[in-house]
Amino acid sequence: MKTKEIAEFLRGELTGDGDIEIVRVGALDTASQGDIAYVEKPGLDVNSNAACLIVPTEFATARAETRPVGSVPLIAVADPKLAFAQIAEVLHPQTGREPEIHQSAIISETAKIGVSVFVGPFVCVGEKSQIGDDTQLCAGAKIGDSVRIGAGCVIHPNVVVEDNCVIGDRVTLHSGVVIGADGFGYVRDKNGYVKFPQIGTVVIENDVEIGANSCVDRGALGETRIGEGTKIDNLVQIAHNVVIGKRVVIAAQTGISGSTVIEDDCVIGGQVGMGDHARVQTGAVIGSQAGVLPGKIVRPGVWWGTPVQPLDEYKRQNAHLKGLARLKDEVKELKSEITKLSHPD
Amino acid sequence: MKTKEIAEFLRGELTGDGDIEIVRVGALDTASQGDIAYVEKPGLDVNSNAACLIVPTEFATARAETRPVGSVPLIAVADPKLAFAQIAEVLHPQTGREPEIHQSAIISETAKIGVSVFVGPFVCVGEKSQIGDDTQLCAGAKIGDSVRIGAGCVIHPNVVVEDNCVIGDRVTLHSGVVIGADGFGYVRDKNGYVKFPQIGTVVIENDVEIGANSCVDRGALGETRIGEGTKIDNLVQIAHNVVIGKRVVIAAQTGISGSTVIEDDCVIGGQVGMGDHARVQTGAVIGSQAGVLPGKIVRPGVWWGTPVQPLDEYKRQNAHLKGLARLKDEVKELKSEITKLSHPD
Amino acid sequence: MKTKEIAEFLRGELTGDGDIEIVRVGALDTASQGDIAYVEKPGLDVNSNAACLIVPTEFATARAETRPVGSVPLIAVADPKLAFAQIAEVLHPQTGREPEIHQSAIISETAKIGVSVFVGPFVCVGEKSQIGDDTQLCAGAKIGDSVRIGAGCVIHPNVVVEDNCVIGDRVTLHSGVVIGADGFGYVRDKNGYVKFPQIGTVVIENDVEIGANSCVDRGALGETRIGEGTKIDNLVQIAHNVVIGKRVVIAAQTGISGSTVIEDDCVIGGQVGMGDHARVQTGAVIGSQAGVLPGKIVRPGVWWGTPVQPLDEYKRQNAHLKGLARLKDEVKELKSEITKLSHPD
Repeated sequence: MKTKEIAEFLRGELTGDGDIEIVRVGALDTASQGDIAYVEKPGLDVNSNAACLIVPTEFATARAETRPVGSVPLIAVADPKLAFAQIAEVLHPQTGREPEIHQSAIISETAKIGVSVFVGPFVCVGEKSQIGDDTQLCAGAKIGDSVRIGAGCVIHPNVVVEDNCVIGDRVTLHSGVVIGADGFGYVRDKNGYVKFPQIGTVVIENDVEIGANSCVDRGALGETRIGEGTKIDNLVQIAHNVVIGKRVVIAAQTGISGSTVIEDDCVIGGQVGMGDHARVQTGAVIGSQAGVLPGKIVRPGVWWGTPVQPLDEYKRQNAHLKGLARLKDEVKELKSEITKLSHPD
Repeated sequence: MKTKEIAEFLRGELTGDGDIEIVRVGALDTASQGDIAYVEKPGLDVNSNAACLIVPTEFATARAETRPVGSVPLIAVADPKLAFAQIAEVLHPQTGREPEIHQSAIISETAKIGVSVFVGPFVCVGEKSQIGDDTQLCAGAKIGDSVRIGAGCVIHPNVVVEDNCVIGDRVTLHSGVVIGADGFGYVRDKNGYVKFPQIGTVVIENDVEIGANSCVDRGALGETRIGEGTKIDNLVQIAHNVVIGKRVVIAAQTGISGSTVIEDDCVIGGQVGMGDHARVQTGAVIGSQAGVLPGKIVRPGVWWGTPVQPLDEYKRQNAHLKGLARLKDEVKELKSEITKLSHPD
Repeated sequence: MKTKEIAEFLRGELTGDGDIEIVRVGALDTASQGDIAYVEKPGLDVNSNAACLIVPTEFATARAETRPVGSVPLIAVADPKLAFAQIAEVLHPQTGREPEIHQSAIISETAKIGVSVFVGPFVCVGEKSQIGDDTQLCAGAKIGDSVRIGAGCVIHPNVVVEDNCVIGDRVTLHSGVVIGADGFGYVRDKNGYVKFPQIGTVVIENDVEIGANSCVDRGALGETRIGEGTKIDNLVQIAHNVVIGKRVVIAAQTGISGSTVIEDDCVIGGQVGMGDHARVQTGAVIGSQAGVLPGKIVRPGVWWGTPVQPLDEYKRQNAHLKGLARLKDEVKELKSEITKLSHPD
């Protein structure tokens, strides 16, 4: 792809040679011939061997004044990181496996497999399940009975999707993900624990990506739902009947307890814990390792700590904490002054 | 199953039509014809299309006074949630797979497989291992050598049970569980780390359930043990030589370090971390995200925070923390008053 | 192995019978005939049925004065636990599987398999991948395309190594480990999230051990690297472009965010969370459940808490916290005294 074609694709402004051939994306510091890299902020002193740079508009202007003609071509855009991600999708299309049903796969006769599907070695597809067009089921994936998986999905090796779960289009499940294990619910009687029914399902909407070894439990009675365009990192736990909205981001090792609702466009850090029946409202951002109590409503804004509080309060409180030693000293001093005042002689 | 049969099974008191056919359990708000639902507390204003409701006794009495004859049948019991779980087990028996040894499974000639066992595709059973009657080994489960698994177990897809582990009767291991990986123990010498021997076993007693992608490491020299009736959620880490008693509940993403003991009937929240050689005594309840220091003895009661403290103290301390800003202001004020007193002019 | 041979191997000093046959290692309290156990510290009052004890030098001296000739043979060394681990490696060599390529394994014709390799049932090895001599790929392991795995590795059941990853010699990956899943990086645009390219690799150096169900993501553009001799526990998350040095120890359920660097010889507790672009310097020790903010530099020393602070400060602050109630009372008292002073009548 030529630099002028990339500029056109990104609707960016090209400075320099438009006929240089770009074959891949690269990191700023390691990029070389054939690579396109990006500069995130205008102020950076850039030293890169990339064949082309995507830059902020201000950067291109500044560079034009200081550098001789003939240096590295620049493509100026409003959001270089986004433009870089967009051109990366073009230069590095997901290498879909060639359509094939591997002879070792065990596919129920009642399952319906779409066109151009890849089914790898040692894959199972259970009774009455449906796999959409262009979907890839990689080696060792286990798809239960009555599962529906949409089109254009990538189900990585050793993923498990239990019975009756529904997965939309263009969903990526990374290796080791478990969808539809039983939720964790019991009722205590005098002899021990009786299992509360875990007979609901999981619904994963379009364009969701779920990281390696994460778990999404089935609803106890109803469903557990992950909304369209939501991105979930590795080793995340989503409990039964949780409802996650659209375009939510959840970082690694976070756990969401039963029936909690996370509305659209929230951002949740890593190792966050949420109690059950909580609600995180649209626009809330929750910092890593935060703890949300059961039933808590988390309003829009940035939240931090356990139990969560607005970031400002958290910082203030932390500052007070740091000042505790001094406060103690002050009180001690006051005490001695008062003693002196009370006993002036 | 007719409403009168359900009432009899639950030893509850039926009000209303005893001949309505119930085919499944449902959630209060989505239940419809054929569904039985439950009302947890007497005070709730209930609006449900369920065909039958399991309710607390007080609810039935109150309803009788306000509603016309002919409305939805009620079954009054002492603990409606428990009764609901019990009837769910009857209406939705675990759909055991039909007994079958799938032709693709690799079973050692020296392994002993009980009667009515299901062995799914791509399952391995190693040398001298024993699988009890009615147990299901789902697709992709890997059972090592000299493993004993009891009767009536459900081993979900892609579970791994390493060599020499022992699993009781009616144990459920959800997908991706790893039983018997090496414990994490090393001794530092001048060149790096020498592995401490990890040659013990894991013993899982009857009626244990372990959630998806959880790990139970083998003992270093002795055993790691999970007691009868204990329930463990997803992504939990149980280290080498941990001993967990009977009827313990452990929520998701909690980690228990080596040689720690959790006695019978404890309840442990999610994302709790416990240091090694700690002991949690019978009747202790530990809140989510709490941290237990190595060697700590946690007595009966409710514990919270890092390091854990009694819930009351934790709350009090939190209240004090919230009041720190005011305390600081008060000290400042006192200071200025003292200054005035000292310099009265 | 005779006691005198063990003493010679460990360069320890033997007291007692040198011709007793030792067949295995055991724990001090459960060891019996044929077992060798160890005593960690001199002061312990030891009561063991072991056939031989590895002990600290001071212990041997003290024992010689108090016990009759003919009691259990002792081998005195400087570091008994280390010596015990070393002799355990001799008495319990890793029981490598007999070399075999199981007929069910799917190995690409373009893959290169070394000599004396074990490839278990249902294993996949992708195109152009290389497996070194004496390596074991256990049942269900999935090795992608263009992967290089060195010599003498043990890849446990159901491990996944995605395309292009490089693994050194004598590496152990426990069951369920996922190497090379996509990193978690997106760029927000007005419609949702665009995936940032995740086209780098993972490099795992020699003698690394990674615990069950842990995840190491591939670099976004460059590589994620785990240094030689590093040991990682279960359920740990290593994000894209993280660089971990040599001989680092990371306990269970810890998560390291993107591009963070951990230098050689650090020790990281369990459930620690690290933000991105942080740096932990050689010699730092970070306590369990600690939180490291993005970009933070953690210097040598012992660190604790969220956000991390030196252990001393953490303890002091905790002590201040515990004293808050009293401080509050003191302020109240001062107030009333001042009131009295101001209004003397």
